[in-house]
Amino acid sequence: MALASTESVSTSTSTSYDFGPAVGLSCRECGALYDLGPNFACIECFGPLEVAYPWSTGRELAADQVGEALRARIESGPGSIWRYAPLLPVPADVATKPNLAPGWTKLVKADNLAKELGLRSLHVKDDSGNPTHSFKDRVVAIALEAARTFGFHTLSCSSTGNLAGAVTAAAARAGLDACVFIPAGLEEAKIVMASVYGKRLVAIEGTYDDVNRFCSELIGDPIGEKWGFVNVNLRPYYAEGSKTLAYEIAEQLGWRLPDNVVIPVASGSQLTKIDKGFQELIKLGLVEEKPYRIFGAQAAGCAPVSAAFKAGHDVVRPVRPDTIAKSLAIGNPADGPYVLDIARRTGGAVEDVTDEEIVDAVHLLARTEGIFAETAGGVTVGVLRKLVADGRIDPDAETVVLNTGDGLKTLDAVSAGARPTATIRPSLDAYRAAFPDNS
Amino acid sequence: MALASTESVSTSTSTSYDFGPAVGLSCRECGALYDLGPNFACIECFGPLEVAYPWSTGRELAADQVGEALRARIESGPGSIWRYAPLLPVPADVATKPNLAPGWTKLVKADNLAKELGLRSLHVKDDSGNPTHSFKDRVVAIALEAARTFGFHTLSCSSTGNLAGAVTAAAARAGLDACVFIPAGLEEAKIVMASVYGKRLVAIEGTYDDVNRFCSELIGDPIGEKWGFVNVNLRPYYAEGSKTLAYEIAEQLGWRLPDNVVIPVASGSQLTKIDKGFQELIKLGLVEEKPYRIFGAQAAGCAPVSAAFKAGHDVVRPVRPDTIAKSLAIGNPADGPYVLDIARRTGGAVEDVTDEEIVDAVHLLARTEGIFAETAGGVTVGVLRKLVADGRIDPDAETVVLNTGDGLKTLDAVSAGARPTATIRPSLDAYRAAFPDNS
Repeated sequence: MALASTESVSTSTSTSYDFGPAVGLSCRECGALYDLGPNFACIECFGPLEVAYPWSTGRELAADQVGEALRARIESGPGSIWRYAPLLPVPADVATKPNLAPGWTKLVKADNLAKELGLRSLHVKDDSGNPTHSFKDRVVAIALEAARTFGFHTLSCSSTGNLAGAVTAAAARAGLDACVFIPAGLEEAKIVMASVYGKRLVAIEGTYDDVNRFCSELIGDPIGEKWGFVNVNLRPYYAEGSKTLAYEIAEQLGWRLPDNVVIPVASGSQLTKIDKGFQELIKLGLVEEKPYRIFGAQAAGCAPVSAAFKAGHDVVRPVRPDTIAKSLAIGNPADGPYVLDIARRTGGAVEDVTDEEIVDAVHLLARTEGIFAETAGGVTVGVLRKLVADGRIDPDAETVVLNTGDGLKTLDAVSAGARPTATIRPSLDAYRAAFPDNS
Repeated sequence: MALASTESVSTSTSTSYDFGPAVGLSCRECGALYDLGPNFACIECFGPLEVAYPWSTGRELAADQVGEALRARIESGPGSIWRYAPLLPVPADVATKPNLAPGWTKLVKADNLAKELGLRSLHVKDDSGNPTHSFKDRVVAIALEAARTFGFHTLSCSSTGNLAGAVTAAAARAGLDACVFIPAGLEEAKIVMASVYGKRLVAIEGTYDDVNRFCSELIGDPIGEKWGFVNVNLRPYYAEGSKTLAYEIAEQLGWRLPDNVVIPVASGSQLTKIDKGFQELIKLGLVEEKPYRIFGAQAAGCAPVSAAFKAGHDVVRPVRPDTIAKSLAIGNPADGPYVLDIARRTGGAVEDVTDEEIVDAVHLLARTEGIFAETAGGVTVGVLRKLVADGRIDPDAETVVLNTGDGLKTLDAVSAGARPTATIRPSLDAYRAAFPDNS
């Protein structure tokens, strides 16, 4: 399904890769079209590339590629992101290959939290149920298939910890080699997760930015020739994985779009891809077209997009992160301008909450719904609370809030306040003394 | 569906509770039948009570309660243990009530691990995908429904940590109160998990045995009158939750029983209920009858059942646990004799592995399949390896091994060996010096 060379800027050999419905890569800035390959930047304008499909390039679609027929095909698929293989840059038989089969996580009807916040209808999309307990498994799974397709033997990434675990776990399962890069001096829990799968874990003396720059050097060197860096040279494929959050939310609501979605913003990629996913669902006749609002959530200690939104700017001024929400601590978010555009276009907003509000929100979600979120989940729930309180989210609308990770990965954030309600001797008298009001 | 009083020993009022297909409680020792109620011990012989069903009491079953019709009903059910509501002591509408909807976790085809061990066919039933990341969510969910049915307002348990988190999470979601008891001096991670859901966490100055004894005192006191202790007075209901592991394994294999199953043994309840589940599947015509072997796995530092198996004893001599597999550290396992009986009857075995072998097996599973298991998963995989090596598991048979929890909960067990492969400056020369063989 490669594009004819007259239609596209050819950058790779004529090898015809099987990426399912994908027909090429297109520049998000200038629209230039490229053949499918391990490329991530436009050679015309240096804009980011994304995967193009028949439905994004204005082609005619067959009757079995849309609407009821497509819905039936999806519904009979596996309980993982692979049910959406017809909408992703993966071969049709992807579910039969060894991978972690992430996704199809719970959409939890959160009546207790809704009541506490004064909302009529609220759901939590809980991605802590993924194999390595964060949404990263979705994006890594797509990148892994791309790596296989391109004949790469080593999976790699720059990471502040969570992505390193997702990549090494996926590589272990797939039987690929892996070599992942982290800044030296990370927390022990993250080093354990990134090293337990038996792959190469390399600590770099420097900051996360130094790690990133070094990875770009490796891609240009013969060392990295057969390496797939999931968040660099495989980024166009990787990023598509976030669309599955949109598909699942809609399908789990009964093939319907919600009125509001609250999404965490790190690089901003996830938010832009959820919007892309909703647009595709409408275009393919899987859901009815309706307005929806997209809200971005950041930590106050790393809120460059929120700051730009509030100031009415189109560009995002980088910041130096200082927040407990480390998985969102990207001070120079690549997709920041796209996030601003989507929030404004849909009538949403970008807001931020302090570390104290994040911890409060983690506890709020835990005690109302029994969901123990990582700090990123505290950011979205905290921002939701703020948006409801100041009237920017309609209490009568249907809202979905994302939890993208697991509290077990950010124990430190809540451990300070964690202690037994009481410590007593094993006697009824001691219990009565400690809890005089027990009914 | 309460039994007529002539058939059963009546111990409770005539209130007719809705426990779905359950018809009573029966004594596992003397067979005495009781009405459904919050009781756990036979007043005739002090034997443990378990839930009785029409199919266990020899009653005639309607055509839509067995075989193809029942299978279709299950397959159209939700992606959680509630798809098996027709086989559990829960009301038919249980899935519509607020609970954590555990289960329907992945049965992972483990070709890499199979190859490494020399097995033809191996699957890992991976219960780390449950809401609080251990199989405990299954048993607690059934106990929660029983607590609601009996009108209890408080959910409780004695716990060494993991169960406390599962109970408080479930209570939070259900809107019940909870008060859970742990021995003082537990690891911080377990205290965080047990306290984050905002319920009462009471530390007892003493051992786990002291905690247990104190819970029994509370049940007899007015304080505990409306309390459901999931693993004490609700134990008959709670224990039934483990049957769902058997149902899921069979359904996920395509409605077929495996040849071998390797199951961890703490109290032994899980193993006995998996056997009960397989027997029910045969009795109800959901799978074809065939022989299967059940293998129990213990840590050498707490192996009373394995020791009895090897010595040919019918009784289990209690031990003082000393192992890193803390979730299996029950020195006086209530269901030990039943485990011995099942292992012998099915042609299986009970075996144990050292702490070192447990850690090795955690790493083996992680590097071959990308599954990070808690130490209990290291116990089952380690025992599997041992049984294959000495010829007690047939390499050509179809084997399923259980992982009942998540590595993030027992980080300490593997953190000693967890460090970066190398720490380098961000330069290609530094990389080449560290990895001279990189291809």
